[in-house]
Amino acid sequence: MPMDVFATPAGAVDSLMARGAAFLGTRYAILGGAMSWVSERNLVAALSNAGAFGVIACGAMMPDRLAEEIAGTQALTDKPFGVNLITMHPNLMELVQVCLDAKVGHIVFAGGIPPGPAIKAAKEGGAKVICFAPALALAKKLVRSGADALVIEGSEAGGHIGPVSLTVLAQEILPHIRDVPVFVAGGIGRGEAILSYLEMGAAGVQIGTRFVCATESIAHPNFKRAFIRGAARDAMPTVQLDESFPVIPVRALQNEGTKRFLEHQAEVIRRYKAGEVAKEAGQLDIEHFWAGALRRAVIDGDVENGSLMAGQSVGMVTKEQPAAEIIAELLEQAQAALTARRAGA
Amino acid sequence: MPMDVFATPAGAVDSLMARGAAFLGTRYAILGGAMSWVSERNLVAALSNAGAFGVIACGAMMPDRLAEEIAGTQALTDKPFGVNLITMHPNLMELVQVCLDAKVGHIVFAGGIPPGPAIKAAKEGGAKVICFAPALALAKKLVRSGADALVIEGSEAGGHIGPVSLTVLAQEILPHIRDVPVFVAGGIGRGEAILSYLEMGAAGVQIGTRFVCATESIAHPNFKRAFIRGAARDAMPTVQLDESFPVIPVRALQNEGTKRFLEHQAEVIRRYKAGEVAKEAGQLDIEHFWAGALRRAVIDGDVENGSLMAGQSVGMVTKEQPAAEIIAELLEQAQAALTARRAGA
Repeated sequence: MPMDVFATPAGAVDSLMARGAAFLGTRYAILGGAMSWVSERNLVAALSNAGAFGVIACGAMMPDRLAEEIAGTQALTDKPFGVNLITMHPNLMELVQVCLDAKVGHIVFAGGIPPGPAIKAAKEGGAKVICFAPALALAKKLVRSGADALVIEGSEAGGHIGPVSLTVLAQEILPHIRDVPVFVAGGIGRGEAILSYLEMGAAGVQIGTRFVCATESIAHPNFKRAFIRGAARDAMPTVQLDESFPVIPVRALQNEGTKRFLEHQAEVIRRYKAGEVAKEAGQLDIEHFWAGALRRAVIDGDVENGSLMAGQSVGMVTKEQPAAEIIAELLEQAQAALTARRAGA
Repeated sequence: MPMDVFATPAGAVDSLMARGAAFLGTRYAILGGAMSWVSERNLVAALSNAGAFGVIACGAMMPDRLAEEIAGTQALTDKPFGVNLITMHPNLMELVQVCLDAKVGHIVFAGGIPPGPAIKAAKEGGAKVICFAPALALAKKLVRSGADALVIEGSEAGGHIGPVSLTVLAQEILPHIRDVPVFVAGGIGRGEAILSYLEMGAAGVQIGTRFVCATESIAHPNFKRAFIRGAARDAMPTVQLDESFPVIPVRALQNEGTKRFLEHQAEVIRRYKAGEVAKEAGQLDIEHFWAGALRRAVIDGDVENGSLMAGQSVGMVTKEQPAAEIIAELLEQAQAALTARRAGA
């Protein structure tokens, strides 16, 4: 690129995003966060058509259903997009094959360290592999195992989360991983933060919550309204009541459902202690509490009892607007921040 | 300052810190986090002598004891330092007067919105007032009430914490508060993060955890060893078991004490539900559990049962070293990051 491109803030932001965008094959190094029920063909295609990188959330879909969703997305966009697969899905290897058969270029493995054979199959099939790195040691291990890019996701993200915030993960991981692009995620809702993490060495960002209220998102109007009303402090992780019953924390807007989850946990623990239920069954019972709850909120609009999974950036969601407009706004904020800095120096 | 000062990264970092440093009267816009028992005369003076701004943690000290600590600090440094007062201290007004009598230039009010008369007395007595702002609306209110500077502290901080991470608070508050300097806090342990938040518009940073293992810190060797061993994911907030018994979350390294706190909470809640204890007494009982526990760990070195309050930046504490060396390291990291950026552009 000629030097004078960097003379404009837009050019400078593009140049900070260059490595991530080249890796994704997109205009902007912005990955859509994979949100079950929300990140389907409509939102994914809208993000990709707007120059970002949409990601289908496979979640609990079976292979046929995923193949359908990929085909549906391809009918709506000819731009690159990815598929997010949960590593503990019982049909993981088949799902990888579905992606390869459909020529999906990037597979994101989430919810744990992906098994070696899944990484191998994806790469041999010509896809690039993106993994979530929850700590520096694991980041290094994932790169050695063949990950082509990493996402570091802070605990301010929505849905299932790790314990460490993005500010801390970025300091611990970004200075030490140079071999592959690293995308940052969790709580990002404005362009100033995008610029800031790009300048710290991130190749790009992953954003979920901010896109829930995209016009193209099929989320129920009630679900969108809850996001527009919600403040950062309303998006809280679930609580683990007893260390002998580990709960994977899930960040969501608090409602009747989150209250009932706490009561349900307490009841399962009581039954376990009274010898009425075996430990493993109790554990499964707790994890199953939310099954269907997200669909109930996103699709059916039951925002009282369903699960309102949301990141802390929910406070920055103020209205419904087209995906392209959200992306343009984020980039304008990044560019304005850069302009202000240059004026100050 | 002449333009050529900004040509060097050190000059550019200085210039980003200029507003905060001018406000504090220091070389660097780095506030010491006020940590009870740790932030006493030795660490405070060491930070101020090294060009940062030490802050005495008054905590539960009574006025005479605070006067003594201030005098002790003044005997060790002729540089500016501040005093952190907890707004709910029963002798708050007397403590303000002690600070004013000793010509302390900056009073930091923590643990809640400070009462109007305390702000008024501090300002009329010639001190500058620094307040913690947990959300944008409160930040604006505090500025209207006379706060001369704000600290926004993310939930990755140690000790008593709010619910929102620094990445999110920075996006929500920094673009909207220009009238007073805003310092950022929570999880900051490397210079890259300092640079990044300065460029987002912060006037400076507040750092606590990173200074616990300063050579000058009187923390017990066991306490320091626990910090050197601790990883980010070990520094977890206390859990609230029941919404009818609110617990102010405290972030600390997990140990026998944190386990026992959970058991103690459960027991108090059980007694309340059985009608054996009144609600208010139960509440007080829960809050009192930790009284003395921090002293037990910091001073006596009982790291099993005491409270190991620590921020998530604890993973970035790797050895004991002089305060001046820690500060130099943070600035070198900020400058190196700026150099790398300029080389990249």
